[in-house]
Amino acid sequence: MVDRLHEATQELPFRKRMLELMLGAQDSICAALQAIEDERQSGRHFQTDLWEHPEAGGGRTRVLSGGACFEKGGVNVSAVRGSFPPDFAAKLPGSGTEFFATGVSLVLHPLNPHVPTVHANFRYIEQGDARWFGGGADLTPYYFQAEDKEHFHSVWRELCERHADVADHARFRDWCDRYFYLPHRGERRGVGGIFFDYLQVSDAEPDKLEHTAAFVQEGTGSFLDAYLPIVKRRLDTAYTAEQKQWQEYRRGRYVEFNLLYDRGTLFGLKTGGRVESILMSLPPTVRWRYASGDSEPPPGSAEHELLEQLRRPPPPEDTV
Amino acid sequence: MVDRLHEATQELPFRKRMLELMLGAQDSICAALQAIEDERQSGRHFQTDLWEHPEAGGGRTRVLSGGACFEKGGVNVSAVRGSFPPDFAAKLPGSGTEFFATGVSLVLHPLNPHVPTVHANFRYIEQGDARWFGGGADLTPYYFQAEDKEHFHSVWRELCERHADVADHARFRDWCDRYFYLPHRGERRGVGGIFFDYLQVSDAEPDKLEHTAAFVQEGTGSFLDAYLPIVKRRLDTAYTAEQKQWQEYRRGRYVEFNLLYDRGTLFGLKTGGRVESILMSLPPTVRWRYASGDSEPPPGSAEHELLEQLRRPPPPEDTV
Repeated sequence: MVDRLHEATQELPFRKRMLELMLGAQDSICAALQAIEDERQSGRHFQTDLWEHPEAGGGRTRVLSGGACFEKGGVNVSAVRGSFPPDFAAKLPGSGTEFFATGVSLVLHPLNPHVPTVHANFRYIEQGDARWFGGGADLTPYYFQAEDKEHFHSVWRELCERHADVADHARFRDWCDRYFYLPHRGERRGVGGIFFDYLQVSDAEPDKLEHTAAFVQEGTGSFLDAYLPIVKRRLDTAYTAEQKQWQEYRRGRYVEFNLLYDRGTLFGLKTGGRVESILMSLPPTVRWRYASGDSEPPPGSAEHELLEQLRRPPPPEDTV
Repeated sequence: MVDRLHEATQELPFRKRMLELMLGAQDSICAALQAIEDERQSGRHFQTDLWEHPEAGGGRTRVLSGGACFEKGGVNVSAVRGSFPPDFAAKLPGSGTEFFATGVSLVLHPLNPHVPTVHANFRYIEQGDARWFGGGADLTPYYFQAEDKEHFHSVWRELCERHADVADHARFRDWCDRYFYLPHRGERRGVGGIFFDYLQVSDAEPDKLEHTAAFVQEGTGSFLDAYLPIVKRRLDTAYTAEQKQWQEYRRGRYVEFNLLYDRGTLFGLKTGGRVESILMSLPPTVRWRYASGDSEPPPGSAEHELLEQLRRPPPPEDTV
């Protein structure tokens, strides 16, 4: 089934192990999400598509649409070997343009506006002699709930604390808040989580390689711990048509972020990635309305409370 | 009412004249669109917002939402004096970074999927000693109608033919097809129209300045001739919920184009333009669905016919 992805590894053991990690994470995450749909007897299932990258490798995309819990959810694994465009390669830690990359990436858009949207991504990249890990997870609620934010953050904080030799929670948390920011709106995309990139390891540091891989592996497992309790807590909250419209309106910000700023999306689209797998992150239904001053949610409303959470400047640049 | 816009002209007569041209175009276009809503007794009206640019000048934005004909429509005039970012300025015909710009820009998203979306824009820019005009209009149907395309193109062709000393229809038509193209989708945004930029005139050519201004002025008037007959022909066509969904799905491409590629949108957002006036171009309701091979519209369907029109490579680069 996934021979094409394995091809990209050229049978190198560490590459193979990382690919298996990503495929295993996709399996366990999709199984847990599917179980929620099955419990609700929605009759909707993840659909799997295998695709080939024009250079070498490809991906396994799984998407579920029209579910009782997930209006649209996608979990994608890819393993690709190829050449970065030279100007892009020059900005990366390694030398040359040849690369190998494998990762798992997911975005879930719940039907119920009381259940937050979530994104997570974990990736392993080799370029020349350099190798590094990147990833993260962030939560985008439509109605702010302090306990959901606290729970989500606590899982990632505890993960980082267990891997403190390679993971700095405060730094990764702030990095997330800076990355998922819409400068033209002066808004954060959501209530944060963690984000990290260029976690570099050299062949001279075999211990660090193992420690970083262990952090990322456990991170893929932490995703369900971070998100599922929130889903279960909010899934049966009743909602009005106005609340659904608010969710669809706020989903517009998700589209704006992904198409204007998200490095992964822009890089994928401009280098011939599979468009439907990249844009599976876009919400199923979205609204844009023209907003002048008098269309602001009134102070004291739940909608206003969310905006107060999001309209905070990002943390200052990392000085490390 | 529009003192702030006039301020940006520094009372220079040609700047004032161009601003008046844009304001007049906005007035006449909005009046004609409003008349359609009034005929249908929708009770919806264009709402006017005046806004200030942080440097000098500002804009007059008019938006109508929830109409019987126009689900969302915006017509914006701006007049701004300021400094371009240096790397942006270096790519433009003039010298230095100081500029004056005024223009009218509109996007109309009809409720009925049988009525095409339309965009038009006309602008006048000064940078150092250089001055130039740009603009265009393009039609984005959800169901292809050869006679609508032919009519729309014929108005712009005849306009160019009347101003053949400054306007080359074949070149402007091809420029439009190249500009409104989504490379990641391999699709044109719509069925074309005209697009032109950097129509330069120097002070040594007073006749050319007048001729180009006359072309642009008549162009703002041609918009209603190009679009209204199509609206009137299609507005009463009955449509199904599936056809509405197809329109909302295709509107996703409009969002993708505007946020990924449109120079005006990206420039405005990144240089502190008024966000709601820039993003008034985004459709009111939009859908993204995950499309794998088996979700293609079947050959022979009207949806498939549209895709056949759009999935054509853009014309080769202009060699003039």
